[in-house]
Amino acid sequence: MALLGIDLGATKLASAIFNNDGKLIHKENALLNNREGSAVGRFITGQISGLLDFAEVKGDKIESIGISVPGISNTGTGTVWAPNIPGWTDYPLLSEVKKSAGRIPVAVDSDRACCILGESWQGNARGCRDAIFVAVGTGIGAGIIVNGEVLRGSHDVAGAVGWMALNRPFTNSYIECGCFEYHASGEGLAKVTRQLLDSEKDYNGILKVKEPANISSHDVFEAYEAGDPLADKAVGQAVVYWGMAVANLVSIFNPEKIIFGGGVFGPASRFIPAIMEEARKWAQPVGINQVSLELSGLGSSAGVYGAAFLALKNLNKM
Amino acid sequence: MALLGIDLGATKLASAIFNNDGKLIHKENALLNNREGSAVGRFITGQISGLLDFAEVKGDKIESIGISVPGISNTGTGTVWAPNIPGWTDYPLLSEVKKSAGRIPVAVDSDRACCILGESWQGNARGCRDAIFVAVGTGIGAGIIVNGEVLRGSHDVAGAVGWMALNRPFTNSYIECGCFEYHASGEGLAKVTRQLLDSEKDYNGILKVKEPANISSHDVFEAYEAGDPLADKAVGQAVVYWGMAVANLVSIFNPEKIIFGGGVFGPASRFIPAIMEEARKWAQPVGINQVSLELSGLGSSAGVYGAAFLALKNLNKM
Repeated sequence: MALLGIDLGATKLASAIFNNDGKLIHKENALLNNREGSAVGRFITGQISGLLDFAEVKGDKIESIGISVPGISNTGTGTVWAPNIPGWTDYPLLSEVKKSAGRIPVAVDSDRACCILGESWQGNARGCRDAIFVAVGTGIGAGIIVNGEVLRGSHDVAGAVGWMALNRPFTNSYIECGCFEYHASGEGLAKVTRQLLDSEKDYNGILKVKEPANISSHDVFEAYEAGDPLADKAVGQAVVYWGMAVANLVSIFNPEKIIFGGGVFGPASRFIPAIMEEARKWAQPVGINQVSLELSGLGSSAGVYGAAFLALKNLNKM
Repeated sequence: MALLGIDLGATKLASAIFNNDGKLIHKENALLNNREGSAVGRFITGQISGLLDFAEVKGDKIESIGISVPGISNTGTGTVWAPNIPGWTDYPLLSEVKKSAGRIPVAVDSDRACCILGESWQGNARGCRDAIFVAVGTGIGAGIIVNGEVLRGSHDVAGAVGWMALNRPFTNSYIECGCFEYHASGEGLAKVTRQLLDSEKDYNGILKVKEPANISSHDVFEAYEAGDPLADKAVGQAVVYWGMAVANLVSIFNPEKIIFGGGVFGPASRFIPAIMEEARKWAQPVGINQVSLELSGLGSSAGVYGAAFLALKNLNKM
């Protein structure tokens, strides 16, 4: 028996075949090449058909398909809202894929849900029934599993941790993206650095030579590595926010693991001990000693693993 | 068929018999009278025996028993940690009650879990599968149900929302009880008022005549009603914290309802619209429009209703 996991991103599509023990047998990546709307749907179904044939030739029968999407998967209707895919405000992905998948069951979930499912299946949250994946990239979101099941809330928008209120008073800068995301996403880290550049007139370090508008979180981490005092300040602020957020998730969920992943958390992995130190100040004191804070074990493959595990869970439900 | 719900508090024991449609048939209250340790256990089993007999005489056969405890119910061992009952650091309540309950199934859970279970069964969260009970009394805690089941976390300490980090920077005053609880519990509201009395030397209102150490949250609400400016300031601060906490619970859980209850939230019920207004600033904008913020529908009986619903759920599981 084999499982097919599909991970749709904003610009590319990753697909992988797994056996049901979680071993990755085959992986493919393809670019979306600016496809929009239903063309993205056709691209996915084309990819699936190709891989079903491929697997059959190799003697691996695919028995279930899971798809990770970069947005919200509406469990009631099977439609998807994906802000970075033009035309996907309410796209009927599930029914489109089902047409071409025949009798093979299909399940769809959000990328953040799939990331924590992947980590709990084959990554650093293996075997955990209560675990959280905090994805820090351009924005911030979380995939949360409670007693082995994805927390989705009443309308599938649970896990919007980027909106966490962590700093009084409210300012208008929080309106677009939420307080935590404003201060500590990749975008936020760059923004805080730009503001520091603006206010610290005496600063003359390596970030000074960059065009402020072009400064990215990676530049900030690079400058931090080089001992730059402004980068140190910006990163120090982000660590406080990451720590407060971890503390809140610990006090609320009492999880076994919190896994950090997403684009920013390759370079930021060295801050995990500092984040834990900050979290320890704020969190419920029993729960903080029962949690382990770790980096994603699957990196950019977390989504495709999670999609396959989604497929496996869907199969077991039948 | 009938259900027996028992709600153990720090000083008293409430017991009620319900039919399985949730109608309360009979209720009794008893004082603990400074009982400690296993004497409290014996008091509970005595109460249960008496009520089993009482029900039988009335022709109502009790088929399941649920108990709400003021602390943490360890699902693995059946033991209870209850900080306000001397000697209950790891009290084997489940096995003690089972001895005297014979073949009748027994379930135990924390008061915060029981409060939201009660509200979802017969109170203001009726029929909700995703709902939260925020108990504001001396301290602050929450009972959370996710997809109809109580969120307990890896070691039964989930829902410790009083520890939510909402205000930078960290201060040592947060060490004992957490940031949210420090600022916005009944105790916190009184403390903030005392600090304001200390710092606002020009104030000469009705709270000035009180001995600061004796000021309670009820005094603050009373002064607020009378238009006192210092009370207005203290309450205003608490509303901001309550609003931020609601926002965080909405962004994280996407619940249908958040119910406020506990000792402070009789007098504080009038602030629910103001709390919602504050929450709306911070919360994920889709989720905040999908939640309803309400006062407990069961008041001080939420625990005993929840204990009976726990009994019913336990019966249905068998």
